[in-house]
Amino acid sequence: MLASSIYLDYAATSPLAQEPKEAMLPWLSNNDESTNYGNPSSLHKAGRITRQAIESARSEMAYTLGALAEELFFTNSGTESNNWVIQGLAHALKGKGKHLITTQFEHPSVLNPYKHLESQGWDISYLGIDADGKVSLSELKSAIRPDTILVSVIHGHNEIGTLQPIHEIGTFLKEKEILFHTDAVQTVGKIPIDLTKLPVDYLSFSGHKFYGPKGCGGLFIRKSAPRPTALLFGGGQESGLRSGTENVAGIIGMAKALSLASDTMQAESTRLQDLQAYFIDGLNNAFKDSPNQWHLNGPSDLSQRIPGNIHLSISCGNGAVIEGESLILQLDLKGICASSGSACHSAVIEPSPIILALGKSKEQAISTLRLSFGHSTTKEKLDRVIATLTSIIDRLAKSLSSSAS
Amino acid sequence: MLASSIYLDYAATSPLAQEPKEAMLPWLSNNDESTNYGNPSSLHKAGRITRQAIESARSEMAYTLGALAEELFFTNSGTESNNWVIQGLAHALKGKGKHLITTQFEHPSVLNPYKHLESQGWDISYLGIDADGKVSLSELKSAIRPDTILVSVIHGHNEIGTLQPIHEIGTFLKEKEILFHTDAVQTVGKIPIDLTKLPVDYLSFSGHKFYGPKGCGGLFIRKSAPRPTALLFGGGQESGLRSGTENVAGIIGMAKALSLASDTMQAESTRLQDLQAYFIDGLNNAFKDSPNQWHLNGPSDLSQRIPGNIHLSISCGNGAVIEGESLILQLDLKGICASSGSACHSAVIEPSPIILALGKSKEQAISTLRLSFGHSTTKEKLDRVIATLTSIIDRLAKSLSSSAS
Repeated sequence: MLASSIYLDYAATSPLAQEPKEAMLPWLSNNDESTNYGNPSSLHKAGRITRQAIESARSEMAYTLGALAEELFFTNSGTESNNWVIQGLAHALKGKGKHLITTQFEHPSVLNPYKHLESQGWDISYLGIDADGKVSLSELKSAIRPDTILVSVIHGHNEIGTLQPIHEIGTFLKEKEILFHTDAVQTVGKIPIDLTKLPVDYLSFSGHKFYGPKGCGGLFIRKSAPRPTALLFGGGQESGLRSGTENVAGIIGMAKALSLASDTMQAESTRLQDLQAYFIDGLNNAFKDSPNQWHLNGPSDLSQRIPGNIHLSISCGNGAVIEGESLILQLDLKGICASSGSACHSAVIEPSPIILALGKSKEQAISTLRLSFGHSTTKEKLDRVIATLTSIIDRLAKSLSSSAS
Repeated sequence: MLASSIYLDYAATSPLAQEPKEAMLPWLSNNDESTNYGNPSSLHKAGRITRQAIESARSEMAYTLGALAEELFFTNSGTESNNWVIQGLAHALKGKGKHLITTQFEHPSVLNPYKHLESQGWDISYLGIDADGKVSLSELKSAIRPDTILVSVIHGHNEIGTLQPIHEIGTFLKEKEILFHTDAVQTVGKIPIDLTKLPVDYLSFSGHKFYGPKGCGGLFIRKSAPRPTALLFGGGQESGLRSGTENVAGIIGMAKALSLASDTMQAESTRLQDLQAYFIDGLNNAFKDSPNQWHLNGPSDLSQRIPGNIHLSISCGNGAVIEGESLILQLDLKGICASSGSACHSAVIEPSPIILALGKSKEQAISTLRLSFGHSTTKEKLDRVIATLTSIIDRLAKSLSSSAS
């Protein structure tokens, strides 16, 4: 084990915090005396105890988000929430219209359900983005049709960190009586969300993005909005809309994590924005006399980004192209956990479509790095990251150049 | 809290055992040194560590079940596994046929996906059962059609505990080249399952039924069998078939629980069968001089039942009918956790359809009780249950009779 790992991949998963973990432990117990291990659907005491715990967690989370308890539905992941609302509404509203709108750069758990619906005969419009990664309201306006039933726009982008104008989009769609879903997996627990004011009908979230456990998520369904057809049929849990025995400990942990995130949000987001500014300054300084350059992807106005998100591209002075994956692996050897921000599952390195869409070069779209800061990130650690990153880039640029010559 | 609760609802959920819990704890940690909190899809060390842990768990579980690692897919519940395989195969094989067969008495997470498909235009045949709760192979034979694509039969019944002749059914279906799915949520970890010999193409299981955590399940998909279309689209986890960040700690805990269950299966199932016989004898003795009677539902040959399952009905000598729910609530007041075995979500008490199908009377189908034994069950506790149950029945029978007169 490396003694001094630096974890900068909070957007992929934030480690379970101590308080949610402690809140979970009694629900992972088999203590006969406490009978806190029952199936929440059971009528006996052991069942009622877990049922009460789940319903308290639901009320607590609903209160924090400005929702009613009956508007919050527990799922096992953000992916499930996104799939459920998109596939479920398409089926529920088939008679009303077969046109749906999303953006070209949603998380795969939004984009792929839409692509699946497209293959099943639905019409999907995919909106583009501007140089900051924002969806234009006017493009959305011209995409809507009389048979448009649903629009999905991500709240804060999982790669480049852009916060979308959800309020403006939602206000417009409400006027047009078109349903609006936002994937808020990257923003719940990080920026204030008040569903009494945010004009969305559906909002997805995931516990492990705000220091809760993996394997737990949820979907907000506004009381006034139609309910999606179930994706998981069965015992009729979650008001008959989402069957399956509840992940009791997971739900308790997620609720505790959201409550903590909410209590510390103002201070923590300010701290993360300071760290973003500090890192940007530090990188600018480090590259000042370098033949190589770095470029921030997404808004330079930090208030328009997810707190803690940095997404960058590298241009080498000698024309070498450093693949994002190489950067990650080299950083990893130095104990720094980072991400390319795009899924590189195949052996072939493709330029990131979203970076191309921002108007960047193909080289910049290959040479990407996402660093997402969180609880354990400090200026001292970022100093080490800056020094390590610049030295890796210098070395890789030279070696790629010499191997090409 | 009651000082001496007796938990007899292991079929609804078995408490997390100590060893799986201990195996999970390191994966619920945020210790920077161990970086065991990463997202398994991440390329860096923190991601690779969780990926390796998941793949070890997969190999371990596959070995125990007689499967290949690549044949095991993790989900978040038995409900999800059942929904995925049924809905996914119906869609994947739409061109091949639109006829599917199941039984009238599957778990709701099998029955309701079939009913949903029926509402979408698929043809479904629902097989009946005999007096022991078994599906007849001859009824199945006459139900198959040239366009039959899939058959689902539960392995061990969740209410009455009947073990189905899965081997015979599977052998026949294999010959006919019809795909075969079994819901083994109640049997995995309780009776030996060797997938090198059991002729099924798909098998669903759930961790919290064998002393693993809630929120974790899986689906076996035989390598030679077609893969169901995904239900959850997204980042492409689980070989692209089931997206969503993995419940890492849950998977680790489930694998440890299965390994334990497998190691202790022979001794524990013998012990549970002894307890079943002891309970039946005890109840027979207790009712010997009573005006009331008890009836075992499901096979009286204990080798044909899930180890530890007792399902019974009560007939009162004075004609009073004691509702199953009343029994549960009265037992609960005495610290005994039991189940009616049927879902009573509405205020109206309906006779249990499966008990009627066994040829029992309407009264017996109302007056049902499921007791499922597990790790903490002892003869001493069962003595107390027998005494408590008979006294509750005597009292309820008298009070119902006097209130009716």
